[in-house]
Amino acid sequence: MPGTAGRVIKCRAAVAWEAGKPLVIEEVEVAPPQANEVRLKILFTALCHTDVYFWEAKGQTPLFPRIFGHEAGGIVESVGEGVTELQPGDHVLPVFTGECKECRHCKSEESNMCDLLRINTDRGVMINDGKTRFSKNGQPIYHFVGTSTFSEYTVVHAGCVAKINPKAPLDKVCILSCGICTGLGATINVAKPKKDSSIAIFGLGAVGLAAAEGARISGAARIIGVDLNPSRFEEAKKFGVNEFVNPNDYDKPVQEVIAEMTNGGVDRSVECTGSIQAMISAFECVHDGWGVAVLVGVPNKDDAFKTHPVNFLNEKTLKGTFYGNYKPRTDIPGVVEKYMNKELELEKFITHSVPFSEINKAFEYMLQGKSIRCIIRMED
Amino acid sequence: MPGTAGRVIKCRAAVAWEAGKPLVIEEVEVAPPQANEVRLKILFTALCHTDVYFWEAKGQTPLFPRIFGHEAGGIVESVGEGVTELQPGDHVLPVFTGECKECRHCKSEESNMCDLLRINTDRGVMINDGKTRFSKNGQPIYHFVGTSTFSEYTVVHAGCVAKINPKAPLDKVCILSCGICTGLGATINVAKPKKDSSIAIFGLGAVGLAAAEGARISGAARIIGVDLNPSRFEEAKKFGVNEFVNPNDYDKPVQEVIAEMTNGGVDRSVECTGSIQAMISAFECVHDGWGVAVLVGVPNKDDAFKTHPVNFLNEKTLKGTFYGNYKPRTDIPGVVEKYMNKELELEKFITHSVPFSEINKAFEYMLQGKSIRCIIRMED
Ligand SMILES: NC(=O)c1ccc[n+]([C@@H]2O[C@H](COP(=O)([O-])OP(=O)(O)OC[C@H]3O[C@@H](n4cnc5c(N)ncnc54)[C@H](O)[C@@H]3O)[C@@H](O)[C@H]2O)c1
Ligand SMILES: NC(=O)c1ccc[n+]([C@@H]2O[C@H](COP(=O)([O-])OP(=O)(O)OC[C@H]3O[C@@H](n4cnc5c(N)ncnc54)[C@H](O)[C@@H]3O)[C@@H](O)[C@H]2O)c1
Ligand SMILES: [Zn+2]
Ligand SMILES: [Zn+2]
Ligand SMILES: [Zn+2]
Ligand SMILES: [Zn+2]
Repeated sequence: MPGTAGRVIKCRAAVAWEAGKPLVIEEVEVAPPQANEVRLKILFTALCHTDVYFWEAKGQTPLFPRIFGHEAGGIVESVGEGVTELQPGDHVLPVFTGECKECRHCKSEESNMCDLLRINTDRGVMINDGKTRFSKNGQPIYHFVGTSTFSEYTVVHAGCVAKINPKAPLDKVCILSCGICTGLGATINVAKPKKDSSIAIFGLGAVGLAAAEGARISGAARIIGVDLNPSRFEEAKKFGVNEFVNPNDYDKPVQEVIAEMTNGGVDRSVECTGSIQAMISAFECVHDGWGVAVLVGVPNKDDAFKTHPVNFLNEKTLKGTFYGNYKPRTDIPGVVEKYMNKELELEKFITHSVPFSEINKAFEYMLQGKSIRCIIRMED
Repeated sequence: MPGTAGRVIKCRAAVAWEAGKPLVIEEVEVAPPQANEVRLKILFTALCHTDVYFWEAKGQTPLFPRIFGHEAGGIVESVGEGVTELQPGDHVLPVFTGECKECRHCKSEESNMCDLLRINTDRGVMINDGKTRFSKNGQPIYHFVGTSTFSEYTVVHAGCVAKINPKAPLDKVCILSCGICTGLGATINVAKPKKDSSIAIFGLGAVGLAAAEGARISGAARIIGVDLNPSRFEEAKKFGVNEFVNPNDYDKPVQEVIAEMTNGGVDRSVECTGSIQAMISAFECVHDGWGVAVLVGVPNKDDAFKTHPVNFLNEKTLKGTFYGNYKPRTDIPGVVEKYMNKELELEKFITHSVPFSEINKAFEYMLQGKSIRCIIRMED
């Protein structure tokens, strides 16, 4: 690593040239970090469904060529001007939503939506100069949510980097940089189920299973998993899910099925699908008087959430969260410690692993509903 | 009063024979209370917008002939079998949403939506026998939300009656039986604004002004009143409202106007209009990261609440409430005491007063936007 600081690095990156077309491993140029930026060597990255949405660009704004990837673990290669809290060699998780520590959100106990560094899925450039740090033969290649971890080296804002225990295995804790913290925090920090309560989890991908794990840790008694893919149900048992509903098995809306199972509705629900229909069901299936529903899935840009306003008057609450309301720099080192102390299990989320050269397989596994998380090994 | 117990009482009631037509003062027959019911002599009643909606029956299911009225104060005339907590002579406020004290809602700290006695706007009969206690020449006349206080005598379920301090002036505290508690509780119990925070109140009728009063009591610094009726603004100053927005004065949606005034949105909002557009604006005008919006207005039955789901993901919360989350029997005697101790002012809500014979004037005042609350004196 020494010797590269301040210079362009040539390395391999998986470039998405066109919507929905397989990524191509290319040699790209990665510019040095500018002020308040750091350049990271990525060792492990995983695929989250949010990458897939923007790569498919069906319900989202297309922006290509682009380097996707936002769940990863790596090591700081070099730091730009003004970066004081990170130095070369630090073990880190880049996170799609940052923490400047100075804005009203960063200073508020309730919010993790930093004014400066919150997620922006349509921006493909760095905020410093509005330009990309990636290029190939002079052609700029866009960034994705400020992380672009499908590259051996990437440049990210220092506020989007959580410095973690260097003893933590990056091939495991890398999944904390998005999906697992998102689901876990959606339950623990936002839905806050009480002991012995009931909760419905919509979508049993990595995010939903992490939400279930949060429910188990919180002591919820009935953890009802809802998914269209029945193969998810067997796996989900390991995560504390103890009842299952497949909406396709019923003629009536799944919110009615759940209301019947639970004498009027669940105490809490967490939606982790990205489907607008599931979002509406997740809201409508909570019990009146005290039910709380939490939306996590990333909707299409033209989706509309629609319900009868009397559902709100009936004292149901609806919330949403990015990254499980965790503040990346403040909170994530502690979540990594929970894994180190065996309070949190990560291995069960990792169902597949591929070398970087086979990154397109990770997309196939997710699209076929086979994987929870597939780790991509950058050095293989 | 003695001597009437167990017998039909003939008295005056204001009957709505048809949607939108002036009420007619009729001599009606009021049957004695059955098990768990009480018959009340109403001394003062007020008009709330909810009465007007169901009387107009434009966006609501028509049910006629009917006796409206649900904001009132009175005295117990007689009690039915099994009623132990009330006796003739008790001073009471009938409330449109009851408290059985036995169901899961009544036992939950979070809910006031009693399974047995919660508001039901489409039911025009008593739950005991599915029949009315009102009739004229043998023709049944329907009840409204279990209270029907536009009658000198009415029969209500004992669980819908708050027994209050007999020293409290019924011509004032009668407005606690709906509008004022609803607005006050929507802010204090549900929106919970922090000291020095900002809050927008949509609709400056009695409910909205009570919500503003709750904001003032909570120490909110910016209390932004939103109303289409500019004549409400002068009055509203007495209730702590210190900024005003009339949506008609702008070309853009009022949520954008408020976001600009408040650097991204208010900390809290409370909607007290019944307009679906105002409900959507009230939600969208709260700040991302921590904003909480509370719906109070009664929507039309075909209304749809529609917003982009990203507004939830941006960590805005949406809730609703009936009766400000107060439990009528448990909490209302305490709110009456707050008035008695001068912690809560009620006089400023009462802008008009008419004798029972002129009850239709109360409707006119409300429809013309002139009154906050108009007291109807039953004995005049
Ligand atoms: N808010 C955030 O901060 C954040 C962070 C990460 C991921 N996400 C979003 O969370 C969602 C889940 O991500 P993931 O990586 O676990 O995806 P995934 O594809 O692994 O899992 C999604 C699951 O939802 C199921 N599903 C789809 N539609 C459904 C429906 N209508 N009803 C029931 N189940 C349905 C699928 O069968 C699948 O099992 C995605 O929308 C992703 O974009 C949000
Ligand atoms: N949830 C409950 O428990 C409960 C209890 C009582 C009343 N309510 C409802 O609360 C609402 C207010 O009742 P009220 O008695 O104060 O009525 P009101 O008519 O006195 O006041 C309503 C105010 O809202 C204003 N308004 C109407 N549309 C508006 C819009 N689009 N934007 C801004 N302002 C608008 C009107 O000009 C008026 O000043 C009604 O919908 C009523 O049915 C609900
Ligand atoms: Zn993700
Ligand atoms: Zn910040
Ligand atoms: Zn009312
Ligand atoms: Zn009850």
